[in-house]
Amino acid sequence: MTPEFSLIERFFTRPAPSATLGVGDDAALFAVSPGMELAVSTDMLVAGTHFFPDVDPRKLGWKTLAVNVSDLAAMGAQPKWATLSLALPEIDEIWLGAFAEGFFQCANQYGVELIGGDTTRGPLNLSVTIFGEVPRGQALRRDRAEVGDDVWVSGTLGGPALGLAALQSRASLENDALQQCVQALEQPWPRVELGLALRGIAHAAIDISDGFLADLGHILERSRVGANIEFDALPAHAALVPKIGSSQIKQCVLAGGDDYELCFTAPAGQREAISAIATQLGLGLSRVGCIVPGDSALVLDASGNPLSIERTGYDHFA
Amino acid sequence: MTPEFSLIERFFTRPAPSATLGVGDDAALFAVSPGMELAVSTDMLVAGTHFFPDVDPRKLGWKTLAVNVSDLAAMGAQPKWATLSLALPEIDEIWLGAFAEGFFQCANQYGVELIGGDTTRGPLNLSVTIFGEVPRGQALRRDRAEVGDDVWVSGTLGGPALGLAALQSRASLENDALQQCVQALEQPWPRVELGLALRGIAHAAIDISDGFLADLGHILERSRVGANIEFDALPAHAALVPKIGSSQIKQCVLAGGDDYELCFTAPAGQREAISAIATQLGLGLSRVGCIVPGDSALVLDASGNPLSIERTGYDHFA
Repeated sequence: MTPEFSLIERFFTRPAPSATLGVGDDAALFAVSPGMELAVSTDMLVAGTHFFPDVDPRKLGWKTLAVNVSDLAAMGAQPKWATLSLALPEIDEIWLGAFAEGFFQCANQYGVELIGGDTTRGPLNLSVTIFGEVPRGQALRRDRAEVGDDVWVSGTLGGPALGLAALQSRASLENDALQQCVQALEQPWPRVELGLALRGIAHAAIDISDGFLADLGHILERSRVGANIEFDALPAHAALVPKIGSSQIKQCVLAGGDDYELCFTAPAGQREAISAIATQLGLGLSRVGCIVPGDSALVLDASGNPLSIERTGYDHFA
Repeated sequence: MTPEFSLIERFFTRPAPSATLGVGDDAALFAVSPGMELAVSTDMLVAGTHFFPDVDPRKLGWKTLAVNVSDLAAMGAQPKWATLSLALPEIDEIWLGAFAEGFFQCANQYGVELIGGDTTRGPLNLSVTIFGEVPRGQALRRDRAEVGDDVWVSGTLGGPALGLAALQSRASLENDALQQCVQALEQPWPRVELGLALRGIAHAAIDISDGFLADLGHILERSRVGANIEFDALPAHAALVPKIGSSQIKQCVLAGGDDYELCFTAPAGQREAISAIATQLGLGLSRVGCIVPGDSALVLDASGNPLSIERTGYDHFA
């Protein structure tokens, strides 16, 4: 047995009771429940692009799985299984142990079983594919927004982006605020319960990973509609509120990314149902605008005048 | 829309008629056929570890998918869907176009639909997750070999390893032989039809990616058995036959890797059925030894003496 195989076995083999066959064969085997469709998503995280190479591996392990869980949350799917491929520059057992611990903390939190993967030598790269179940025809898609829908956002926006800016010395923050924003950046909590609750209520949904306007833009493009957004209705993270007038803070809210909240649209007739979900989950749900005819989003200030937007989201190749 | 999204759309969006939803949402959606289990495998290819950075991108595209298809072949599963995550150092449209062309050539050859993926900036890394269907309980696993089984190998061994050695100036080859070996290295043909035909016939199976002895070793370990292998029965690639006595050539056959043939075990009572499959598929199937009590493989020369083995397979971290 080569070291890479013993690596996988040692750090990443856990029971996968809901699979027929987990880690250790050419492929994993599992059956999809009757009446369910499989929802599949994949995200690749690269050192230097998505995270600092010296980030706490425990937090990195959590986030590596969490960003994938978030994609299933946005579909209204129940996460169930995942594969993990790792390219590692070297074998560092302490790092691997901590990474695996964080990964499985997130897996346990969201009921995900690791069923397979691959380990190889190369510049640090973490690639997860995640599988979830959703009743046929009930997935929350990007292409179902309708003119007249409300636009909603869960939780708060901009904290992770401001935390990143502070870590990169592009912003200064008080101690408490810094800690909150960095925590939000490093340990996102995907909105799986919200996604499940929104089945049959929301028309369209997406998770906010690249920035609110960029991700809303995907809904608009796929649904062939526009949106009017009230900036003051957007739920800025508490650490941003004192400086909400600044251009940098506005950018964090509108285009910061890494929020892993859900943006969704729903008919006005669902407002009460959505309020009830917010209460039930103890999660803020903010109505931030409405879907209109058109092909893009207009962000309006308190006077109803359009805000000028520098950029709509994060671009890895910019 | 950011350039990375237009990249994905431009090069990697093709119709996925058997999926409910393909590329372009938070997750893809598909239904698994009644009575079927899903077989899932993932492989990550890294520049410098798995391929030369300057390899023809068309051939790289083929191989990136093919090595994943091969894992499903080894399970007796029918490949159906795949996701592709790419980390790219820069946007090179000519390279991407050629890579996509090779990838979809392989996808078309094996009936695989690309249903999702991710593109990001980083050192060149290609990560595929592949999904196939297999009737419940009929998958070819590693842990089902039984004492008394024959050990079989499809096609030929060692050609890709010798081709790699020649490209690295560790071996010299005549023109024709060089071309054959490099072709075998760069464009493997996964044995999907063989895997499907072996359902209900083979006890255990694996694809030979890390080297015959290493991969056979996985069957032995998982099945808790040993094996006696006759070196002379192993199907060496034609280019290796003239120098079969040399230590390097023996290593190519036994431990070269990148063969993407199937190694499988089956009861002696299936020999006729297996011969019929070989004829039907026009594919050589060689009986190379037998499963015995124990925990490792013994390779015997023509006199029945054990061969000394330098290494059993490829280790990325060695």
